[in-house]
Amino acid sequence: MSEVREVEVAIIGAGTAGLTAMGMVRRHTKNFVLINGGSLGTTCARVGCMPSKALIQVAEDFHRRHLFERFGIGGMESLSIDVSEGMEHVRELRDTFVDRVISNSTDTLEEGQFIEGYAKFLAPTLLEVNGAQIRAHKVIIATGSRPVMPQAWLALRDKIMTTDEFFEQADFPPRMAVIGLGVIGLEIGQSLKRMSVEVTGFDQLKTIGGLQDPVASQVAIEIMSKEFPLYLGQAAQITQEGEQLRVTSGEHSVLVDKVLASLGRRPNVANLGLDNLGAPLDARGVPVYHPNTLQIADLPVFIAGDVTGDKAILHEAGHEARIAAYNALHDTVMAFKRKTPLAITFCDPNIAMVGKAWNELDQSRLAIGEMPLGPVGRALIMGKNKGILRVYGDKQTGKILGAVLMGPKGENLAHLLAWAIEQKLTVFNLLAMPYYHPVLEEALQAALYNLMSQVEIKPSLPVELQPL
Amino acid sequence: MSEVREVEVAIIGAGTAGLTAMGMVRRHTKNFVLINGGSLGTTCARVGCMPSKALIQVAEDFHRRHLFERFGIGGMESLSIDVSEGMEHVRELRDTFVDRVISNSTDTLEEGQFIEGYAKFLAPTLLEVNGAQIRAHKVIIATGSRPVMPQAWLALRDKIMTTDEFFEQADFPPRMAVIGLGVIGLEIGQSLKRMSVEVTGFDQLKTIGGLQDPVASQVAIEIMSKEFPLYLGQAAQITQEGEQLRVTSGEHSVLVDKVLASLGRRPNVANLGLDNLGAPLDARGVPVYHPNTLQIADLPVFIAGDVTGDKAILHEAGHEARIAAYNALHDTVMAFKRKTPLAITFCDPNIAMVGKAWNELDQSRLAIGEMPLGPVGRALIMGKNKGILRVYGDKQTGKILGAVLMGPKGENLAHLLAWAIEQKLTVFNLLAMPYYHPVLEEALQAALYNLMSQVEIKPSLPVELQPL
Repeated sequence: MSEVREVEVAIIGAGTAGLTAMGMVRRHTKNFVLINGGSLGTTCARVGCMPSKALIQVAEDFHRRHLFERFGIGGMESLSIDVSEGMEHVRELRDTFVDRVISNSTDTLEEGQFIEGYAKFLAPTLLEVNGAQIRAHKVIIATGSRPVMPQAWLALRDKIMTTDEFFEQADFPPRMAVIGLGVIGLEIGQSLKRMSVEVTGFDQLKTIGGLQDPVASQVAIEIMSKEFPLYLGQAAQITQEGEQLRVTSGEHSVLVDKVLASLGRRPNVANLGLDNLGAPLDARGVPVYHPNTLQIADLPVFIAGDVTGDKAILHEAGHEARIAAYNALHDTVMAFKRKTPLAITFCDPNIAMVGKAWNELDQSRLAIGEMPLGPVGRALIMGKNKGILRVYGDKQTGKILGAVLMGPKGENLAHLLAWAIEQKLTVFNLLAMPYYHPVLEEALQAALYNLMSQVEIKPSLPVELQPL
Repeated sequence: MSEVREVEVAIIGAGTAGLTAMGMVRRHTKNFVLINGGSLGTTCARVGCMPSKALIQVAEDFHRRHLFERFGIGGMESLSIDVSEGMEHVRELRDTFVDRVISNSTDTLEEGQFIEGYAKFLAPTLLEVNGAQIRAHKVIIATGSRPVMPQAWLALRDKIMTTDEFFEQADFPPRMAVIGLGVIGLEIGQSLKRMSVEVTGFDQLKTIGGLQDPVASQVAIEIMSKEFPLYLGQAAQITQEGEQLRVTSGEHSVLVDKVLASLGRRPNVANLGLDNLGAPLDARGVPVYHPNTLQIADLPVFIAGDVTGDKAILHEAGHEARIAAYNALHDTVMAFKRKTPLAITFCDPNIAMVGKAWNELDQSRLAIGEMPLGPVGRALIMGKNKGILRVYGDKQTGKILGAVLMGPKGENLAHLLAWAIEQKLTVFNLLAMPYYHPVLEEALQAALYNLMSQVEIKPSLPVELQPL
């Protein structure tokens, strides 16, 4: 039996979380190992945030032609989209981003610091990779996630794609169903429709985009229903019908050529030997961990990124990785603040949720500042005056608690609000800020005025004025 | 001689500042008068921010066709722009915005509260309007501004337009010069060029867009020079040549059909009888006022908006009006904080300046965080990866002092920075905020990391981590 290699830190997974953790670890020690099974390049760059944004941009630019007549631009009827060329462009950008990730990370490692292979825990600090054993003082689990694919659909897998295959498609057939209308379903479903695919959307929930707020949910369903038909509230079934697939949801059914299954992602925990940690696992098989230390039980083992099954977003993966790496590198485990929740769906208009979600709010102290996008000057000018902003505040103090936004530049307004919530600002603080004209930030200002009108404590001075 | 009417507050001018002041005054008293000479509707809605943004949107959408081939969209060569239809669309939107202003303001006033006419001071609290006299306990001067037009060009006035005439044009001739490359010159010059007018730009300064920062200025000149030729550093001369105008700047000269003179705006102070205030006037004839009280000398007279000749931007006009109105309504004059400076040019890419300007910075304590837009992922996806972000910080403490931005979504990033400066945040505070992926806010994050690397005080923990 070969010698057991000993390292200070072992990081399992070279995605966003693993690479971020590695970036911190390598500043402290050369004696670490990064172990990765499967493709290099993060989920984000390969099959997630980046290629989806490139697809959305192409679809959006093609879609803008419907404004051309109003703008005095002639010839829009001559425009056509070659989806295979569009996808080629998306892949070119994707390859640029993937190459960048790899050349900035694994390519820079020294001999032995990187192992291609699947790691398995034999004990909390003992790993097996490619038949060899590694004893690590500390371990960071960052194995990421994979798309959910129901067992029942595996037989039809050649006509049912996930994001793992989506961006490899040379072209799309005339009719597709998108099953699962969360972030990915909305972003890709709308883009496909705008690129001339006949799309039908399904979700077993009665809402879309993860929206809990009943008003915003209604507005989102109304807006997105005009993009493509949505069937909500019942799980979709798929059956083969000749060369096609029949997707059925309750009384509705539609015949399509292919299906995009966008049912969410599940943590990559199988085959990791997590039972050998001796720590409790949750129903999905994810070790129970502390959200502020990322530590698993009291083990020298930490977890970060999509594999936690919690906040599968790049910036949270990075943050978790920093916490995990910090704790892996120090003798005493420290608890850190988590970021203000921030979730963005880059459909058009954007959907964003910031801070406390609807279901977490204390309704007895809740005031909601609301502004529909319809009359907003700049939104009208952009030809994008659809949506609604709802800002949640404490009705006694005016403290901003959260928001749900559907509107153009929602992604940007969401940052303003998230940063305000990070600083525990009130509606009064925010109304004293400058708002340029004419910008979408003024729609937020209007929502904040509406919120302020409902807050019990009123400032003695006009809210825009602050004594010198 | 008729009786002198007595009012609590007289407001001269029904633009943004006058209407904002009126909105506050009417909540305290019915006994006020709003006096307006000339057209109703604010400069912003009639000839400023709103129609220019509508023009920019049309031009931008037409310009995006150059990305179509890359995106797999065919037929761009069939697109054409009918400028007269585009301008018709711009005017339709403008009329909507002007109507909205009027119906929300002067239309709601009672008999006698609104007078059409030009007011003149006979004494600090005695006005003459349409031959009648008004005694006002307090007066707010809000007469706005008008475009600068050199005396020498008046003879050629039918071929030289300002923004006062620009949006009334049914169409534009094939060749135009834009003289003055500040906000308006850049916004309109670039839009005209994108709408197929052959545009040449001139400015007597060696910079454009009001940029003082030498690096940003150079980047802006490089980017905008690719849009249309710029001749900088010498005052332009105009001479008639047949039916055309020859515009000459040093050795360069160009023959054009019409000229847009965008040389800035001057305060409307002539014929107001300001000599009769008995207060000192500056070189332009504007009464000297206190920037935090908006009071003129120790008179019961206040000034707000473009007429101050200082910050001719809508949101500052509104803020000044609130300060002026507050002080006009109270016995004791109070000094208020001014907003963090925020200036945006909505050319493509946007140019924005926030906080302290280059010339106001203490260079001995200055650290500059810089990020070029070239490699920024989302900017690449948008086909807009041009520009640079420069964030100014105190190199001892890391406090954010100001920024100059040239890039896509500069208008939105500028708000994040202005709000941060309002709260006196440091680069460390900002780097602890959430940044979603992939968004332009990440380019700001990169500039902030670059800034932090130059700051003398370093936090003991990684900057992204905050103890719970």
